[in-house]
Amino acid sequence: MRILLTLQYLGTRYAGWQMQSNAVGVQQVVEEALARMFGSAIRIEGGGRTDSGVHAEGQRAHFDVPFEIPPRGMALGLNDLLPPDVRVLEARQVADDFHCRFDAVGKVYEYRIRNGEVADVFSSETHAFVAPRLDEKLMEDAAQALVGEHDFRAFTVASPEVSSTTRTIHSVRVRRDGEKVCIEVTANGFLRYMVRRIAGSLIEIGRGKIDRGAIAEALEPKFSEARWTAPAKGLTLMEIRY
Amino acid sequence: MRILLTLQYLGTRYAGWQMQSNAVGVQQVVEEALARMFGSAIRIEGGGRTDSGVHAEGQRAHFDVPFEIPPRGMALGLNDLLPPDVRVLEARQVADDFHCRFDAVGKVYEYRIRNGEVADVFSSETHAFVAPRLDEKLMEDAAQALVGEHDFRAFTVASPEVSSTTRTIHSVRVRRDGEKVCIEVTANGFLRYMVRRIAGSLIEIGRGKIDRGAIAEALEPKFSEARWTAPAKGLTLMEIRY
Repeated sequence: MRILLTLQYLGTRYAGWQMQSNAVGVQQVVEEALARMFGSAIRIEGGGRTDSGVHAEGQRAHFDVPFEIPPRGMALGLNDLLPPDVRVLEARQVADDFHCRFDAVGKVYEYRIRNGEVADVFSSETHAFVAPRLDEKLMEDAAQALVGEHDFRAFTVASPEVSSTTRTIHSVRVRRDGEKVCIEVTANGFLRYMVRRIAGSLIEIGRGKIDRGAIAEALEPKFSEARWTAPAKGLTLMEIRY
Repeated sequence: MRILLTLQYLGTRYAGWQMQSNAVGVQQVVEEALARMFGSAIRIEGGGRTDSGVHAEGQRAHFDVPFEIPPRGMALGLNDLLPPDVRVLEARQVADDFHCRFDAVGKVYEYRIRNGEVADVFSSETHAFVAPRLDEKLMEDAAQALVGEHDFRAFTVASPEVSSTTRTIHSVRVRRDGEKVCIEVTANGFLRYMVRRIAGSLIEIGRGKIDRGAIAEALEPKFSEARWTAPAKGLTLMEIRY
């Protein structure tokens, strides 16, 4: 039977979803817990390949087990075997041909910023710190140029695995709650560094360092690349939609 | 001139405000930053003696410097010298006879609980985890027996430093925000473990394990002690009032 997990993790200690030669990945940690639970190696597929230091509120992963098992009990058991910075929020049975990455129709990421004079100790692992006051309304207005189908080449790095750099952004919202500013981006898919580069440009716009037109310019074919990449720790994968 | 600091810290790595023989205290960390800044040892007084693992959003501390210095610049400079889990939120000059502990007229603590089926990775350092559903309205109702002047002997441990175990609680509020439950206690002063034991009793009441009358009983002279002490990591010193 095929099981789909919903996972939450604090990415601080990890090399990202996938392991690196010198650091452990979240995927590996979950596979180790499954191996302890079932007594044999189980390979899992992840829905989103989050980078080093990036967090997840709603990562998805699937795997097959050769026997029937109640998913709810398995979720509780896995949490006993996982480190406290990785949690299984839900486990459920899905069709044997379901694929958590290829069947995704959309993803939601949040980029979180602590925007105040002093960095907050309680948000230092999950929020980027920006001291100058950000104009969140200007950021949201400027971000609307990203909505729709575009070539986001300027917001990623060249990768042999990726055949096309065209994606469709469904929405970008920028909200302020006191000294926290949150950029929420929903798209049919994301390229590497895409949200961090969008956030980096919007931060520069929000603090008045660059013109709001820089977003539209970066989407033009002649443009080389967006220069500002916001730090990984502010990024969280919120949801994968099927 | 005398300087009053407002401090925020994540207590996870510390022995509490004061150092222990085998672990570093927040006071010591701030004193070391001041020593580096001023080139000589400076002794600071803290407003509240938070225990090991307890956090602060609004701790206060004062100290004297033998010369005039702009407090705002000093706050920024101190933050450069402090580890990221300790922040100076504000520094201001106060009267030379002001005392951050003896002049306090009230303090506010929050006890924070993650109340859901799965512990949340993003709140695991600052929230106690309680899986059974808590009835926050019942907790708040039961807590009203604590309000007023009482002998809180049952909610602390004997200490030679403390002459009286009578304190006045001004208010206790219990709020739920999704899967987070927060107990806010305001009093003219607190005894050691007092909030954690109040929280421990209220959690037992909220999950239906003990009767709501247990609070009033614990305040009766014959009662020995409250048996439930909630973990330190859920506790945060929010404010000291003057």
